[in-house]
Amino acid sequence: MAESTQVSPFAATPEPPYFAVIFTSLRRGGDDGYGEMARRMFDLALEQPGCLGAESARDASGFGLTVAYFASEEAIAAWRNHADHRIAQELGRTRWYKHYELRVARVERAYSGPEGR
Amino acid sequence: MAESTQVSPFAATPEPPYFAVIFTSLRRGGDDGYGEMARRMFDLALEQPGCLGAESARDASGFGLTVAYFASEEAIAAWRNHADHRIAQELGRTRWYKHYELRVARVERAYSGPEGR
Repeated sequence: MAESTQVSPFAATPEPPYFAVIFTSLRRGGDDGYGEMARRMFDLALEQPGCLGAESARDASGFGLTVAYFASEEAIAAWRNHADHRIAQELGRTRWYKHYELRVARVERAYSGPEGR
Repeated sequence: MAESTQVSPFAATPEPPYFAVIFTSLRRGGDDGYGEMARRMFDLALEQPGCLGAESARDASGFGLTVAYFASEEAIAAWRNHADHRIAQELGRTRWYKHYELRVARVERAYSGPEGR
């Protein structure tokens, strides 16, 4: 995962329901400022009101998933419109990503392990 | 992503609504049969009725995310109870994972890029 103010790679989410923003992306080659911005945006997301945590992994092929969890649709909208995040989104479109998919979902139930379900 | 019968690392999902099973996990060290089973389960999931695709990445720290997309809750339940998948789940709990989180969510909207939103 990205280095972060969130100590664990796992998001300590509350009981559902809450929302998940699932961002899947394939990077272009080269860093081109991406690594630093990715870390900044991960930490900035965590600071937003209503953000419940985030989880992220990218493999050696440049394919990655980030899921950020939010308490409400309003919190998602505020993060989407955050000025610094807007700049990062534009750089993502024009410079960093070959392709991405973004899905907004409502988490209905959750389990953890290995200690049973 | 895992090598797979799905050619692209991206799932070609239809218009929402549909369901997402978000599986986040931290591996123990060593392979111990994990790599082969992970590829088998990824491909087997894609063959299940109602499976719409899957996306997966694991980083060098052993932290990974896999999101599998399904048309219905019934399709999720059938995959959870698949005999081969049951064996893999048990090995995951006893052998492969330090920790995992599993969340079931209903995808409400989706976008892709870089070509606009």
